[in-house]
Amino acid sequence: MAEKKQGGAGLRGQVAGATALCTVGQSGTGLTYRGYDITDLAGNAQFEEVAYLLLRGKLPNQQELDAYKARLQGLRALPDALKAVLEQIPGDAHPMDVMRTGCSMLGNLETEEDFSEQDDKIDRMLAVFPSIITYWYRFVHEGVRIETDGDCDSIGGHFLELLHGKKPSELHERVMNVSLILYAEHEFNASTFSARVCASTLSDIHSCVTGAIGTLRGPLHGGANEAAMALIQQFKTPDEAEQGLLGMLGRKEKIMGFGHAVYRESDPRNAIIKKWSEKLAQEVGDQVLYPVSVRCEEVMWREKKLFCNADFFHASAYHFMGIPTELFTPIFVMSRVSGWTAHVKEQRENNRIIRPSAEYTGPDHAEWLPIEQRA
Amino acid sequence: MAEKKQGGAGLRGQVAGATALCTVGQSGTGLTYRGYDITDLAGNAQFEEVAYLLLRGKLPNQQELDAYKARLQGLRALPDALKAVLEQIPGDAHPMDVMRTGCSMLGNLETEEDFSEQDDKIDRMLAVFPSIITYWYRFVHEGVRIETDGDCDSIGGHFLELLHGKKPSELHERVMNVSLILYAEHEFNASTFSARVCASTLSDIHSCVTGAIGTLRGPLHGGANEAAMALIQQFKTPDEAEQGLLGMLGRKEKIMGFGHAVYRESDPRNAIIKKWSEKLAQEVGDQVLYPVSVRCEEVMWREKKLFCNADFFHASAYHFMGIPTELFTPIFVMSRVSGWTAHVKEQRENNRIIRPSAEYTGPDHAEWLPIEQRA
Repeated sequence: MAEKKQGGAGLRGQVAGATALCTVGQSGTGLTYRGYDITDLAGNAQFEEVAYLLLRGKLPNQQELDAYKARLQGLRALPDALKAVLEQIPGDAHPMDVMRTGCSMLGNLETEEDFSEQDDKIDRMLAVFPSIITYWYRFVHEGVRIETDGDCDSIGGHFLELLHGKKPSELHERVMNVSLILYAEHEFNASTFSARVCASTLSDIHSCVTGAIGTLRGPLHGGANEAAMALIQQFKTPDEAEQGLLGMLGRKEKIMGFGHAVYRESDPRNAIIKKWSEKLAQEVGDQVLYPVSVRCEEVMWREKKLFCNADFFHASAYHFMGIPTELFTPIFVMSRVSGWTAHVKEQRENNRIIRPSAEYTGPDHAEWLPIEQRA
Repeated sequence: MAEKKQGGAGLRGQVAGATALCTVGQSGTGLTYRGYDITDLAGNAQFEEVAYLLLRGKLPNQQELDAYKARLQGLRALPDALKAVLEQIPGDAHPMDVMRTGCSMLGNLETEEDFSEQDDKIDRMLAVFPSIITYWYRFVHEGVRIETDGDCDSIGGHFLELLHGKKPSELHERVMNVSLILYAEHEFNASTFSARVCASTLSDIHSCVTGAIGTLRGPLHGGANEAAMALIQQFKTPDEAEQGLLGMLGRKEKIMGFGHAVYRESDPRNAIIKKWSEKLAQEVGDQVLYPVSVRCEEVMWREKKLFCNADFFHASAYHFMGIPTELFTPIFVMSRVSGWTAHVKEQRENNRIIRPSAEYTGPDHAEWLPIEQRA
């Protein structure tokens, strides 16, 4: 066997491949997509513009963006067989299992036969994921079979429109748009890496995304904004939140929504979503969740020098827009599918199968013992 | 950012974690599961015995094996909602997409709520995967809704019984058993590694296996036995095969079923399955496929010093048992699910999220340009 190098646990700090898509945590920039600062993108771009940047390699001009949005808007309908599958999924299922199954089923109905079809399959997933989750959600909770076309020309607005059965306000559509931009891409995080491992066997694009959804489902990855919601909803006042957090810290309980595997001093996405959460709090007249969230941020920094990551103020922001907590992570999917699939395209362009080695910790040699002689 | 180490492409030779399950390619042993040589296991054990070894950490005694097999036999029924989903999948779908979707749907219906349930969920997948693929296959091809219980007490026999609608011969059941043992486990191959990446976010067991199925689907990984079948079926005589192969080598075409990412001199599984393929050839009176396969082996070694891997003689062996080529890779799933889930258990016992770094190859910094100023 080739000589093995000892790797850090979880491959931390080890280079597993190359990407031109993203930098995370480099000093002075924080987070960039193809060189563009996340603050510029979230402040100025539409999510579809960012998806185009990630997937096509450059920012679109107005004509290209208009055509791209129109194209996506035309791809929102669910095939009948996919609707039938969603209707078989019980109402108490985990919404990430619904997304995973919906994506996998789509792969049966609209299989990527050849990599020349990859852009078409990716656009379809971007367009149809909001339809998948809201169709199931409203079918199992309200017993209705919704039309998934919708009037909003943005993916974020489309999701809110299908979820609530009416066009969202301009503010809500804008916040969804910002949120989708913030979650779109994050280098070799676990779900993206799983998509690249899958892509490296030259498997199809639906397999790559299905696997990534399953990986994002884990509480150490995508579930943090839901956990943050569960945290802040416990408290009725900032003082109560402070006491509660101090108690949790004293008992060494895990507190979600703070710190990050790569960022050391702050998460550049936090200031952005925090500002929008504040605006939404003003709109709905909130005097609890937002002040509680701010106090949590202060206490965690003062006590542990831990900063809010992207997930923390997303919890209150989503809540103010009337989004059920269990749909927070599926929104992450609607966004990150752009980054996942951009990575799959990149992996395919310069592929070698991802097949690491393992440190063996088992017995050296075991002598076969016939079954009748075993204890 | 932490200092990065430059990694080999595809993480080749880099240690990505520890395992007590398997060694691959160590001199003098070839392939071992928990220290037991693959030749001993394939020569003496039943597949369920090997699954028990991988999943429970030791070979079972007779009482334990009997109980385990009886338990698995009781877990073969498909839930109605899963049948309904399988019936929605078209007949021209890729059978690996069917497996992936079936596993994902099972996760909606019988979700792993807590890791204390992992062994139950794993046993269920081991028992029900043959039911999933054969139910779909016979529904779309014959229009029948089969009962998935069956009389055979082995997983391999159960698969053949459901596929053909009658109990298999002793020889066929034995060969399936050997085949499932040979494919059960192979250290940090790409599909297993994807299962571990998923497990490292503490996601559920169905997500891990669904992702692994999608990864195995790729032609660089699980599809090699199907490709080997396509190769040998082209030729009517050994001489024709020799000429054909020499032509392909001259044109530098990729020939599947030979060589391996880790093994350097031979694949220890080849001699085993080759012997069984020969027995089956005698049984069915074959005078084409087996001799053609043997000649392919001779030519590839003589011309390229490339040896047959586990997949090559599996093609003829499966074919002699009347298994359609498109179901070859799903059989791989029925077997490898034991190894995948043993790795998931291991990852969960000593977990750190698998989150490598990337070498950045994109632009240093890109200045934001308003859309109306873009070319």
